[in-house]
Amino acid sequence: MQDRIRNADMFNRLMSAEQAAGLIKPGMTVAMSGFTGAGYPKAVPQALAARMEAAASAGDPFRIKVLTGASTAPELDGALAKVNGMELRLPYQSDPALRERINNGEIDYIDMHLSHVAQHTWSGFFGNIDVAVIEVAGVLEDGRLIPSSSVGNNKTWLEQADKVILEVNRFQPAGLEGMHDIYYGTALPPDRKPIPLIRPDDRIGEPYLRVDPAKIVAVVATDAPDRNSPFSAPDEASQRIAGHLLDFFTNEIKQGRLTKKLLPLQSGVGNIANAVLAALSESGYEDLTAYTEVIQDGMLELIRKGVLKMASATSFSLSAAGMKEFNNNLDFYRTRILLRPQEISNHPELIRRLGCIAMNGMIEADIYGNVNSTHIAGSKVMNGIGGSGDFARNGWLSIFMSPSTAKAGSISGIVPMVSHVDHTEHDTMVIVTEQGLADLRGLAPKQRAQLIIDRCTHPDYRPMLQDYFDRAKRESYGKHTPHLLNEALSWHQRFIETGSMHHYPVGALSGGTR
Amino acid sequence: MQDRIRNADMFNRLMSAEQAAGLIKPGMTVAMSGFTGAGYPKAVPQALAARMEAAASAGDPFRIKVLTGASTAPELDGALAKVNGMELRLPYQSDPALRERINNGEIDYIDMHLSHVAQHTWSGFFGNIDVAVIEVAGVLEDGRLIPSSSVGNNKTWLEQADKVILEVNRFQPAGLEGMHDIYYGTALPPDRKPIPLIRPDDRIGEPYLRVDPAKIVAVVATDAPDRNSPFSAPDEASQRIAGHLLDFFTNEIKQGRLTKKLLPLQSGVGNIANAVLAALSESGYEDLTAYTEVIQDGMLELIRKGVLKMASATSFSLSAAGMKEFNNNLDFYRTRILLRPQEISNHPELIRRLGCIAMNGMIEADIYGNVNSTHIAGSKVMNGIGGSGDFARNGWLSIFMSPSTAKAGSISGIVPMVSHVDHTEHDTMVIVTEQGLADLRGLAPKQRAQLIIDRCTHPDYRPMLQDYFDRAKRESYGKHTPHLLNEALSWHQRFIETGSMHHYPVGALSGGTR
Repeated sequence: MQDRIRNADMFNRLMSAEQAAGLIKPGMTVAMSGFTGAGYPKAVPQALAARMEAAASAGDPFRIKVLTGASTAPELDGALAKVNGMELRLPYQSDPALRERINNGEIDYIDMHLSHVAQHTWSGFFGNIDVAVIEVAGVLEDGRLIPSSSVGNNKTWLEQADKVILEVNRFQPAGLEGMHDIYYGTALPPDRKPIPLIRPDDRIGEPYLRVDPAKIVAVVATDAPDRNSPFSAPDEASQRIAGHLLDFFTNEIKQGRLTKKLLPLQSGVGNIANAVLAALSESGYEDLTAYTEVIQDGMLELIRKGVLKMASATSFSLSAAGMKEFNNNLDFYRTRILLRPQEISNHPELIRRLGCIAMNGMIEADIYGNVNSTHIAGSKVMNGIGGSGDFARNGWLSIFMSPSTAKAGSISGIVPMVSHVDHTEHDTMVIVTEQGLADLRGLAPKQRAQLIIDRCTHPDYRPMLQDYFDRAKRESYGKHTPHLLNEALSWHQRFIETGSMHHYPVGALSGGTR
Repeated sequence: MQDRIRNADMFNRLMSAEQAAGLIKPGMTVAMSGFTGAGYPKAVPQALAARMEAAASAGDPFRIKVLTGASTAPELDGALAKVNGMELRLPYQSDPALRERINNGEIDYIDMHLSHVAQHTWSGFFGNIDVAVIEVAGVLEDGRLIPSSSVGNNKTWLEQADKVILEVNRFQPAGLEGMHDIYYGTALPPDRKPIPLIRPDDRIGEPYLRVDPAKIVAVVATDAPDRNSPFSAPDEASQRIAGHLLDFFTNEIKQGRLTKKLLPLQSGVGNIANAVLAALSESGYEDLTAYTEVIQDGMLELIRKGVLKMASATSFSLSAAGMKEFNNNLDFYRTRILLRPQEISNHPELIRRLGCIAMNGMIEADIYGNVNSTHIAGSKVMNGIGGSGDFARNGWLSIFMSPSTAKAGSISGIVPMVSHVDHTEHDTMVIVTEQGLADLRGLAPKQRAQLIIDRCTHPDYRPMLQDYFDRAKRESYGKHTPHLLNEALSWHQRFIETGSMHHYPVGALSGGTR
């Protein structure tokens, strides 16, 4: 392990995960590394969960507040949720066990813009950070840290925590060294200066994380891979969504609003995002750039093919195959990928300046273009807003994508009124489903509504939605954004009561996207 | 008029407003100056309205698309709305006649972030700009323009319009010359650079507007004041809101999150904003700054008293008395006020960097902190989002203020679910009513809800809201953001049907704020 922990003083602080976890006490606020299942601590949270379970069995509940970069993995969120060891969680999660506890009302969850976490922490809104648990790939002779497969909020956690526990994971390739760009120029107002980044590939910081060695109370050696992010071949609906989006790009280029190099891409993760990236790789584009949060398999492939010149992100989210490809060709990728703190990857100033093309999934949109990214039926949180608001609000193009139906047709992705708003009608520019694409820019509310109904709605739901809109235009209190308030959320209520948003039973529907 | 039109070539293009209006044809897209009732053209729109009325009488409807900076005045929006001469209007309005036509469904209105207008225009989403009608205070020998009492989108209109009609208004004080800072460094991506503004008083541009002289098809001489923005002494509710806000600032300073110089203030207009400014002027603050959209009477007074060192804005909105004070002391104010294009006053990059304290009114908030700034009962637009989203989304503090009830208690400012979302739960930090202040930062949804119910709700509505929340916590589909979807909008529906959101008749309510 001495090759990874080159500082003798740190090497001497090596201890077991169980010993390190013993430094975490009930009620503490613990900030951990981790972003989309990469670079999270793998040993201490599990050892902590074991202690929590033992404490709970002894009738002595042991719960903490957990802050991270974004989502983690079963070894962290899953393990702590299973033993009911979290009283508060932020700023993003995607773990099934944790989600269930949140929606049972057992855990408070603050679902917030990823770009806001650092400044809110500095302001003390989450209280004092007692301990940070940070995975790194190594420790230099001088005590600086080689970041792991995600950066997330690690710079902030290391600065703000009273004590630091390091997990040095030798499974993370040594070749990660040099891929990171940690910017130490941020400040709180009134001391903020322009951030000197003009192109996605600008290096503005340094490759290592700084830490006050006096804070480091434990070093734990680990040797375990990041969570695999399963990658499945795009399904037909995703491919059709990607097709509509590529046609849209073609037209933007034709209209002179984009060049063939497009603008820096931001892409969420998942099946649709993969389909879009795959379509881009087959459409003759080259020398594109990405300024995004996450490098997923599809993006790696775009880099390999030269479609993508480089990608700036804060984290990886790779499948086993993707990880192998990356590790086998690290020297190639190291010059084409930059990992930055999420404060910088998601910074409003930079997203506006670069003019990112923000492409994110959604749960549902309504006829006026309001988008729900977070809540099922207005009350049950799915994952969280993540960075979608950072990119949609300040980017050049805000694109939201979803199949037009879900759950065998029982849920429509387009509804009269969304049950929760994460992106307002003022911020949404393009809505895409496998049915088609609605470009909302420059349109007034009723124009947007008719376009979304015509282009994006599934045929099973289109007559219902047209009927709602037609009656609303006649009967609404105001005719600027016509709505029938006693019906606006009735589709969701019907879903809660009957399992389907549709009047007809699910069996009578066409059963999915077409 | 030669003192104001110092360029001989321009002087020779002088013509009557009727002649100039004759250059505007049905169906044209016309971009006009004007922001919060300042610096709008005063003669051509009225002459145009007369032509439209004549045309309509002859059975030949004459309508145009109208783009401005923000709201204008009876001579523009009022006159054109009266003759039904607009088919489309953007990006903001506050005229009663226009509002009525919009809510009757007769005019399409695009209610958009003021910071988005310039880049959307450059991208062509509003089509070709046929004519710009711009009020200026004068024309220099070399043809550059002395801007008027607002800048708004004038730089963009002058650049993008095919033809330009100038109104040279000699009523605007000659001393305005030198107060403006027109930045010519913006670009479309990928050519954007950091905007070199670090303090609200940084000058980054030039004092004059540039225009291609070949575009100027008419110059019209006018001599008329801007619309008076009535200023009334703050009522009791506004004073109590201001009191809560000042206590909040005091505590922020105590907590070390703000210094005694606060951070650059952004303030909406109206009674509550005036009360807040008045309270600031009596609380021992000095050397504050403002980075905002509008200079209203209260801000002028803060500057006069030295409480405010300087203010950066894009427009004035003064009462007759305020205008007199300003004109009589122009040399004093000229060194303490900068007027910039709204692209810069509302720029996300600058608002985030400066860390603006965004203080805006609202129509209603819901228990989770979602804010409705635009729609009555979800369908009837009031004014528009204006710059509130620009400042709330990227500022340091986003504060929304409203009396806890309206219309003699028949409307609650706090509702179970807002009927329209302009600012999401992710963006709202502080809610204030005369009842109290809720600081939502660092709180999960259910914590926010209880705080808003306890602190901000009127006693007449508090039991109803608590009852909703309690039942929602028990019966909601998900318990993360508990809602009862068949009741969530019932308060608004009851208001539509009965004239009151309350179960009890209005006469039985306490009749307003207390």
